[in-house]
Amino acid sequence: MAAKEYGPRERMVFSAVQLIRRDGVAATGLREIVAHANAPRGSLQHYFPGGKEQLVGEAIAWGGRYARRRVEGLVANLRLPRPSLLFAAMVQQWIDDYAANGFGAGCPIVAATVDWADSVDTTRRAAATAFDDWRQPVVAGLKDMGVPARRASSLATLMISTLEGAVLMARAERDVTPLRTAARELGPLLDAAVRD
Amino acid sequence: MAAKEYGPRERMVFSAVQLIRRDGVAATGLREIVAHANAPRGSLQHYFPGGKEQLVGEAIAWGGRYARRRVEGLVANLRLPRPSLLFAAMVQQWIDDYAANGFGAGCPIVAATVDWADSVDTTRRAAATAFDDWRQPVVAGLKDMGVPARRASSLATLMISTLEGAVLMARAERDVTPLRTAARELGPLLDAAVRD
Repeated sequence: MAAKEYGPRERMVFSAVQLIRRDGVAATGLREIVAHANAPRGSLQHYFPGGKEQLVGEAIAWGGRYARRRVEGLVANLRLPRPSLLFAAMVQQWIDDYAANGFGAGCPIVAATVDWADSVDTTRRAAATAFDDWRQPVVAGLKDMGVPARRASSLATLMISTLEGAVLMARAERDVTPLRTAARELGPLLDAAVRD
Repeated sequence: MAAKEYGPRERMVFSAVQLIRRDGVAATGLREIVAHANAPRGSLQHYFPGGKEQLVGEAIAWGGRYARRRVEGLVANLRLPRPSLLFAAMVQQWIDDYAANGFGAGCPIVAATVDWADSVDTTRRAAATAFDDWRQPVVAGLKDMGVPARRASSLATLMISTLEGAVLMARAERDVTPLRTAARELGPLLDAAVRD
């Protein structure tokens, strides 16, 4: 995302996502977001009259839409329509991110759940919606590959749970092994769910 | 844990765990921990000269030891020595906690990873050690049940990843479905790893 092409509102949401991924919601200050976004003073109040709660909610929603589009793109570009290949591609995105950028950042939806979900209900609901946004194209992709509908819903939840947990362990351990393990171990289970 | 039986040092570590589970590390203040632990003023400096960093490190280590002992107890008390039953018991602990106490708290190791891992390396290392503390009795339990050693290591990582991710999704969605899904979907995969 080339920041120059976007206005201050979009840049602030994107900066909020980046800072939340690194430091969590509680430690991310509004002034820091404005500075990171190179946004004019006063623009925060103008674009986000609801303050931090609004901006965090939009950042989480952005994360959910990003995950949804990313999965849609992965499904569209699979070499073969196999559930294991979709999951491997979802995992590979994180392996590539950690290889390129180090282990400094995690998932913004997780960060919001961990440190704001209990005190700010709009943030908690934004996180739930973002997980759902992400899950929908996974369910649709699995169904298109021949997984029965009910099973597709379960497996999509499993894929996202396992990926999120592996991202956390990899970040704590500064080692992508939990991510590679997730892809290798879940692959056969996912492919076995395809209707013959 | 009956707080009265413990001294102020132990109570402060335990209070730190509880507050970190709810609010994350960044939002948990030292004064709040002292008040929650009903500890004398000045005891913080006395017992934790390294300040918040030391106390958080000890809280994460406490979480790792708790998880380790908990898994050891579950393994010892399984009706049948089956990997699926061990995983179901690990998941059930969270379902029971959410049923009894609501969805206000998550895993302290995850909280530390999300909002302090990048800025405070002792916390990041404490989280990695805690994950390892937790994983060891899972690996040992799987091996005792007949899972080959290398596979036991992979599956223990998968079990913890999946559980952590399902805890997060359940908390965001205020619904234990991701936890039940994890136990149901991984069970057959885990049992199939037992050597004939």
